[in-house]
Amino acid sequence: MSRVFNFSAGPAVLPEEVLKEAAAEMLDYNGTGMSVMEMSHRSKAYQEIIQTAEKDLRDLMNIPDNYKVLFLQGGASQQFAMIPMNLMKNKVADYIITGQWAKKAFKEAQMYGKARAVASSEDKTFSYIPDCSDLDIDDDADYVYICENNTIYGTKFKTLPNTKGKTLVADVSSCFLSEPVDVSKYGVIYGGVQKNVGPAGVVIVIIREDLITEDTLDGTPTMLKYKIHADNDSLYNTPPAYGIYICGKVFKWLKKMGGLGAMKEHNEKKAAILYDYLDQSKLFKGTVVKEDRSLMNVPFVTGDEELDAKFVKEAKAAGFENLKGHRSVGGMRASIYNAMPIEGVEKLVDFMKKFEAENVK
Amino acid sequence: MSRVFNFSAGPAVLPEEVLKEAAAEMLDYNGTGMSVMEMSHRSKAYQEIIQTAEKDLRDLMNIPDNYKVLFLQGGASQQFAMIPMNLMKNKVADYIITGQWAKKAFKEAQMYGKARAVASSEDKTFSYIPDCSDLDIDDDADYVYICENNTIYGTKFKTLPNTKGKTLVADVSSCFLSEPVDVSKYGVIYGGVQKNVGPAGVVIVIIREDLITEDTLDGTPTMLKYKIHADNDSLYNTPPAYGIYICGKVFKWLKKMGGLGAMKEHNEKKAAILYDYLDQSKLFKGTVVKEDRSLMNVPFVTGDEELDAKFVKEAKAAGFENLKGHRSVGGMRASIYNAMPIEGVEKLVDFMKKFEAENVK
Ligand SMILES: Cc1ncc(COP(=O)(O)O)c(C=O)c1O
Ligand SMILES: Cc1ncc(COP(=O)(O)O)c(C=O)c1O
Ligand SMILES: [Mg+2]
Ligand SMILES: [Mg+2]
Ligand SMILES: [Mg+2]
Ligand SMILES: [Mg+2]
Repeated sequence: MSRVFNFSAGPAVLPEEVLKEAAAEMLDYNGTGMSVMEMSHRSKAYQEIIQTAEKDLRDLMNIPDNYKVLFLQGGASQQFAMIPMNLMKNKVADYIITGQWAKKAFKEAQMYGKARAVASSEDKTFSYIPDCSDLDIDDDADYVYICENNTIYGTKFKTLPNTKGKTLVADVSSCFLSEPVDVSKYGVIYGGVQKNVGPAGVVIVIIREDLITEDTLDGTPTMLKYKIHADNDSLYNTPPAYGIYICGKVFKWLKKMGGLGAMKEHNEKKAAILYDYLDQSKLFKGTVVKEDRSLMNVPFVTGDEELDAKFVKEAKAAGFENLKGHRSVGGMRASIYNAMPIEGVEKLVDFMKKFEAENVK
Repeated sequence: MSRVFNFSAGPAVLPEEVLKEAAAEMLDYNGTGMSVMEMSHRSKAYQEIIQTAEKDLRDLMNIPDNYKVLFLQGGASQQFAMIPMNLMKNKVADYIITGQWAKKAFKEAQMYGKARAVASSEDKTFSYIPDCSDLDIDDDADYVYICENNTIYGTKFKTLPNTKGKTLVADVSSCFLSEPVDVSKYGVIYGGVQKNVGPAGVVIVIIREDLITEDTLDGTPTMLKYKIHADNDSLYNTPPAYGIYICGKVFKWLKKMGGLGAMKEHNEKKAAILYDYLDQSKLFKGTVVKEDRSLMNVPFVTGDEELDAKFVKEAKAAGFENLKGHRSVGGMRASIYNAMPIEGVEKLVDFMKKFEAENVK
């Protein structure tokens, strides 16, 4: 067995020791005589798994008691509808458009009320985060929405927008648990887990209790009501049980690694190796303005599409997988989530240097 | 490692060889150098997994070409809303109420149009399937809805209802792939996979193409539109990738076992061992009228709640797990899905005989 370096934007690399544990427990979890996949979600063994997962996540993120943690299905995309359906009491919400995912969320919200784009970086292919210090926030806005880390474009909000007192809702799919976060600044933090946290099929929603009400838009399906899931501790119906179990293992791994403060240091160190090289390379260059660079997703280009394709191909042959940029932007993208070891980035940079030497005349 | 006999109603027992393969492939699927959990859903390796899964399911169920197979999230419960949101063009649908799950689906549909209960077996605690040969089907009914196998009550439709030409929609969550089925008799067949097919977090929807249209109810979230998923071959957003992979392995296992005809024989033989014993036991008795008995879920009682509790406790100590009946009916329930070996049922009956000898004065 040989493992590759997997730079996929998601689903993405997971900690090797988590996978090893999962393999070892596959036929018999902890003396129960069954796989976690086979367990009734109402059994004692499973209750302990989901409760421990929640507790460890609360510890890691320091989640205040007045926030609920929900483990749901449908991916981040389903939240694009759940958020307006549950939160648009005044039917007004303000969106900051920093990439495709924010835009999709915005378009979905327009089905349900007056969703307004109050800022955008589309003018420069989403290569920066707009100034959000003094936006024209609607007095009636039920919330202000951001995609905190833009997976495709490689930007990240380093400062949260000034919402002028309105509830902040953030999609953190691609920066989940990558650094400490002050949960109290948000009304809702959510993300699909398939980048930094676990296997696709689980979305985690951290939501302030006062935002969880019976008062949802007409026609909101039962399964799309936060209150149903909150009242039932994510067990209203059968949850994505195995995925939650893997997330729980990743939470334990993060605690062992020193928690989110340590992860941030680790991620900064890792990202610097790549960004520093990009900044002095004569062949490659990053596509994002320096101050808004993501620690997780690093897009770069040579400026020559053929050379980009050659690089991706040769990198793959050398064991660096999934370096092709998103189909909407081209070039390359290295996603270097929590579970990507420093060694992976070091070796990638070595490979890039070699490629540069061979391809710069 | 010792495996128990797991009679859980779902999530439920899976074939041991499927679990062994999954464990062996956990860190390196088929030479890719990564776990299926870590794979981009747009990668070649994953495309092959999902396409092969679909093909094998089509083979097993002999699904006609004019039906789409969708792998979705949200569980069966989310279908309770998706069905009316997508199919209620006239805003009328007729429901046959044979248990809690049918009732929940019915209640959800009432949010979206005129959902009518055209038959029910609630008068006798859902212990039988009502006569559905000549129901008062609405001329405008967009569909007639059944829960084909009632997990909680242990009944199964042995004859499909006469829908008077209207589209039949069936929840087959707890009888999925347990016997051959004539797909062409249905408009939609769907089920959560967590009983007979795979880990919780995947729902499979088999739907006739003409029912997949743009014309959904106002406010239907993008993620709840069949058309979006059909047009994108279940890859509109990140699918529950690992769960689909396990389902694919179960499909291969079913083919190796001889397909659904062989499974039916196997399941009939297995169920007969338990039902025959129940019919001659002086202590235990089944709760369902004989002609409507499920092959999958077998509820039974002693008639004495304390004795029921004693039985469940002693059975658990002897390695027979999850025999407690659903909280809404009490007593016992043995779910004996495809992956439950005959040996499990034989040993359970031996244990019941011993218990009967000890407890009948
Ligand atoms: C930031 C962000 N939001 C939302 C999504 C969509 O997630 P899902 O595929 O789980 O719906 C993605 C997926 O890549 C993402 O990167
Ligand atoms: C027949 C039937 N339908 C629907 C459901 C609900 O499924 P889910 O938990 O996936 O929403 C169940 C669950 O046990 C079931 O047995
Ligand atoms: Mg983006
Ligand atoms: Mg450069
Ligand atoms: Mg039922
Ligand atoms: Mg009897």
